[in-house]
Amino acid sequence: MEHKAAIVLAMFGTTVESALKGLLNIHAKMTVRFPAIPVRIAFTSNIIRRRWQKRAADPAYLHAHPDIPVEILGVRTVLAVIADLQDQGYDSIVLQPTHIAMGEEYLDLGTYVDSLLRMGTVKKTKYKPFHKIALGRPALGTYGPIHPYADDITAAAKALAADAEMARAARAALVYMGHGNEHFPSAGSYVELARRMRTLHPDVLTLIGNVEGFPSLDDVIGELQRSEAKRVLLKPFMVVAGDHSVKDMAGPEEDSWKSVLEQEGFEVHAVERGLGEIDDFANIFVRNAAEAAADAGIFLK
Amino acid sequence: MEHKAAIVLAMFGTTVESALKGLLNIHAKMTVRFPAIPVRIAFTSNIIRRRWQKRAADPAYLHAHPDIPVEILGVRTVLAVIADLQDQGYDSIVLQPTHIAMGEEYLDLGTYVDSLLRMGTVKKTKYKPFHKIALGRPALGTYGPIHPYADDITAAAKALAADAEMARAARAALVYMGHGNEHFPSAGSYVELARRMRTLHPDVLTLIGNVEGFPSLDDVIGELQRSEAKRVLLKPFMVVAGDHSVKDMAGPEEDSWKSVLEQEGFEVHAVERGLGEIDDFANIFVRNAAEAAADAGIFLK
Amino acid sequence: MEHKAAIVLAMFGTTVESALKGLLNIHAKMTVRFPAIPVRIAFTSNIIRRRWQKRAADPAYLHAHPDIPVEILGVRTVLAVIADLQDQGYDSIVLQPTHIAMGEEYLDLGTYVDSLLRMGTVKKTKYKPFHKIALGRPALGTYGPIHPYADDITAAAKALAADAEMARAARAALVYMGHGNEHFPSAGSYVELARRMRTLHPDVLTLIGNVEGFPSLDDVIGELQRSEAKRVLLKPFMVVAGDHSVKDMAGPEEDSWKSVLEQEGFEVHAVERGLGEIDDFANIFVRNAAEAAADAGIFLK
Amino acid sequence: MEHKAAIVLAMFGTTVESALKGLLNIHAKMTVRFPAIPVRIAFTSNIIRRRWQKRAADPAYLHAHPDIPVEILGVRTVLAVIADLQDQGYDSIVLQPTHIAMGEEYLDLGTYVDSLLRMGTVKKTKYKPFHKIALGRPALGTYGPIHPYADDITAAAKALAADAEMARAARAALVYMGHGNEHFPSAGSYVELARRMRTLHPDVLTLIGNVEGFPSLDDVIGELQRSEAKRVLLKPFMVVAGDHSVKDMAGPEEDSWKSVLEQEGFEVHAVERGLGEIDDFANIFVRNAAEAAADAGIFLK
Repeated sequence: MEHKAAIVLAMFGTTVESALKGLLNIHAKMTVRFPAIPVRIAFTSNIIRRRWQKRAADPAYLHAHPDIPVEILGVRTVLAVIADLQDQGYDSIVLQPTHIAMGEEYLDLGTYVDSLLRMGTVKKTKYKPFHKIALGRPALGTYGPIHPYADDITAAAKALAADAEMARAARAALVYMGHGNEHFPSAGSYVELARRMRTLHPDVLTLIGNVEGFPSLDDVIGELQRSEAKRVLLKPFMVVAGDHSVKDMAGPEEDSWKSVLEQEGFEVHAVERGLGEIDDFANIFVRNAAEAAADAGIFLK
Repeated sequence: MEHKAAIVLAMFGTTVESALKGLLNIHAKMTVRFPAIPVRIAFTSNIIRRRWQKRAADPAYLHAHPDIPVEILGVRTVLAVIADLQDQGYDSIVLQPTHIAMGEEYLDLGTYVDSLLRMGTVKKTKYKPFHKIALGRPALGTYGPIHPYADDITAAAKALAADAEMARAARAALVYMGHGNEHFPSAGSYVELARRMRTLHPDVLTLIGNVEGFPSLDDVIGELQRSEAKRVLLKPFMVVAGDHSVKDMAGPEEDSWKSVLEQEGFEVHAVERGLGEIDDFANIFVRNAAEAAADAGIFLK
Repeated sequence: MEHKAAIVLAMFGTTVESALKGLLNIHAKMTVRFPAIPVRIAFTSNIIRRRWQKRAADPAYLHAHPDIPVEILGVRTVLAVIADLQDQGYDSIVLQPTHIAMGEEYLDLGTYVDSLLRMGTVKKTKYKPFHKIALGRPALGTYGPIHPYADDITAAAKALAADAEMARAARAALVYMGHGNEHFPSAGSYVELARRMRTLHPDVLTLIGNVEGFPSLDDVIGELQRSEAKRVLLKPFMVVAGDHSVKDMAGPEEDSWKSVLEQEGFEVHAVERGLGEIDDFANIFVRNAAEAAADAGIFLK
Repeated sequence: MEHKAAIVLAMFGTTVESALKGLLNIHAKMTVRFPAIPVRIAFTSNIIRRRWQKRAADPAYLHAHPDIPVEILGVRTVLAVIADLQDQGYDSIVLQPTHIAMGEEYLDLGTYVDSLLRMGTVKKTKYKPFHKIALGRPALGTYGPIHPYADDITAAAKALAADAEMARAARAALVYMGHGNEHFPSAGSYVELARRMRTLHPDVLTLIGNVEGFPSLDDVIGELQRSEAKRVLLKPFMVVAGDHSVKDMAGPEEDSWKSVLEQEGFEVHAVERGLGEIDDFANIFVRNAAEAAADAGIFLK
């Protein structure tokens, strides 16, 4: 029996039109690497997906935004995208999240994969809806013995060399705003990434703070104050430069990171560009999908 | 959080246009009973589904068959139908097979339900794609303490009273052709159904043979010969009067049941009418869906 | 890494001392076939196990019953026996039920096997408590494409040739009392076994009735009355000749099968001997364990 | 039906006799808190368990070590301990790991709990071997919305106040040696704990390095050199002061942490005392077990 493979990109999603290019760039890189394989986009956020459903049904919006691709206007859940593929005869799926770090969302996707593979197992093999499903790891890696997460963090740090170079040229500290979370102790990956940046670029002070959880902006400010930094290059450590970048990081409100850092006396230059827009970083997800497929024995010809 | 419910009918499917009415009648009965709830059709047979996909893309076929409903022309897998519903915001699903007996296909559907309910359980509750999924039992019941299968068999026998009446009027034995199978010892339900018919209608000899597995046509002939029957009313014990009815049961070939029975000296009257076309029988699936929903706490307002 | 294999016999159990030989014979046959492999006994019935726990702690009972083997006095749950083996370094388990037919208990054991194999899968392979677990099928087979259940039924019928011979010699009908159940439509296996017996021994009327569910004693009596039988050879169709044999089948109460059949005018000869005491039948479980091990790739050297 | 509850402590284990008191103290604290509930010990390390099995069978060892409790000499796997309890009629289990951080071992225990709860679900309720199983979280918390991990880290930091006090009195930096790992990005919990210690005790420089993974001893030395510290109070951040403490942390070899730090010019005072020996820290596991039981509705009367 012949098996047909497809790739599904599981993205949190964004409603900010200008931020889509971070996501679409990952999609484009994946398509360039696997031109014969369907690459589909799914959004995991129910709220964001419903927003796009409304926009897709709103002629005024469509008229005003002629450039939004149909993959976004008709974006669906991870399950719906995978089920569509199954209905069309694809039984081998590579599910690649565009998440930064291993956390609850990644573990949740793992329950999807496990569940889909358990379907139809009474009659075995022939009637299983899926032959193989592989789950690619997030940008900063995950647990497991095959791909040491520390290597993934080093590779991610290398993909960000241009950021360090920009900070160095401006004699600025490089401060990333990550998302982080209150419910999963994922801070290790972020902190280790910052440390690895400093190993690679010892003359640039690189720090990461998170919107939620540890380390906080206060932690970052404390480190900056203990250093000799005067200037700060501020960038999102998120795949897209969406709401968090526009408002929380670089917005004019007095509690945005830019405002707070300026109030603390630093000269701040904010760059609203998602990590997905950086080709080397986008290609991390391509590598992860390729390796997950190889580990699972899925042939992405 | 408000929950939205939908019903999915999991049918093996058929490619015989005239047989569709057995399936569509079940769909109609379900819709009448639950007018405010979406009732969707899925076909589990990959071969049959692909056949309909080809027909749906064939203008000549569409022109020649203007009456095929769009639910059949665009029929999808169980997973695709359920995932569509989830994408549209339905988180409570009643999955009702139109199977006759509990067998491998029913157990397979059970693995679907279990799997779908395990998705998204890391983050619990809020991010689970499904709130509740209930699996309705087949027409002849299933294992478990809540709905004794013997009661289901009795109810099915009562729904077939018109068949017994027709046989009585013709002074014929009533012989059903079931599907049966070689891989699952499901014969008990069939044999018990026939026995129950004889309890309800002691003056009509009712027998069931299966296309696959036990009891065979030979078993049926043996019983007929031990009786005083001269005439046979032959009917399918399948939801649709599809390929098996047209060819294996009533076809002109010399190995059809009709031909074989005639060769054995019986006068045979074959009625090609699927059980789904009998309203009382179709309503068994409606009852089973309603009870599965009630057992699971799904509100089908 | 070297793997160590063991066999676990999952028995419902019995509290009737004389009935133990049906179980111990199966254990003995398994040990003879696999002399280098530990063969352990587990009882699934909580009530029976607790009874043995009390007896094992009762000096008077032990004094009065010096022949009860320690495997029975210290009998444990299926999970406890398997976990003990794991604690002792056995990572490959063949779980062989001594059930007659595929029913809820067998499906339940399937959930044990599935569950045990899912343990420890985060760290993969090395830290999984079990390498392989195989579930042997019941005497009358189970669903699935590898071992057609009809073949198992034929093999079981052949193992009972001596019963047919005894009935033939006495010009008696052979009536088995099976357990059956109200919650699982397993009657097919029983009915088909009886039919197969009649194919193999056309001159002996063989019937099976069940304590619970279909076919009932009434069904059996109806068939006997439609035949010319005057005498009945009555035997349990259960692994042990336990409570059901002693009381319900052959007891002096007027509602025992023997009494009822006698009241109906039949001459009844009851033989209280469990199927497990019949070597050919006991060896069915040995064959099933061997085949389950082979199918799973467990080496029972 | 009455439910009986028991507590199982899942410990990695140790072969160092003097280190046992870290484990036994947790057991003692749990017993004091739940005097009516059995509290059993299991070791997850196969190597350590086999070592104890050998010792238990060695008369010379037993003679030389009369004080080793029988719970250690006969220590078993997690599964064996839980299955024993089930065999004895306990159907409600609180499984409390004595792990420091959420990592692969904790997720693996989660697969045990899930699997045990799936057993026996065909016949539902009455025949399930377990009614409820609760998994307590590690000392530094885990993911999930109910118990924010940051609160757990703060509580752990507070339990270590005496360490900070000892360091303050000696005008030393406090350096913990954690275990860490190469395969799971768990460093966040460690780094955040150290940061929280500094918030609570701003005048004491508290750092954590890990034997495996990030942060390394080199990272710690870098931080020490950037500070004004001259003296170091060196302690294990592990439940027991076992092999790692005796050799890798405080041993005389020149690559022990003590030796390396001394070579770097620091005055080092090493205290080989496991966290389990600190009553406030041991009680964290008691609290976690109590809260897991409460969350699951297990009544530890």
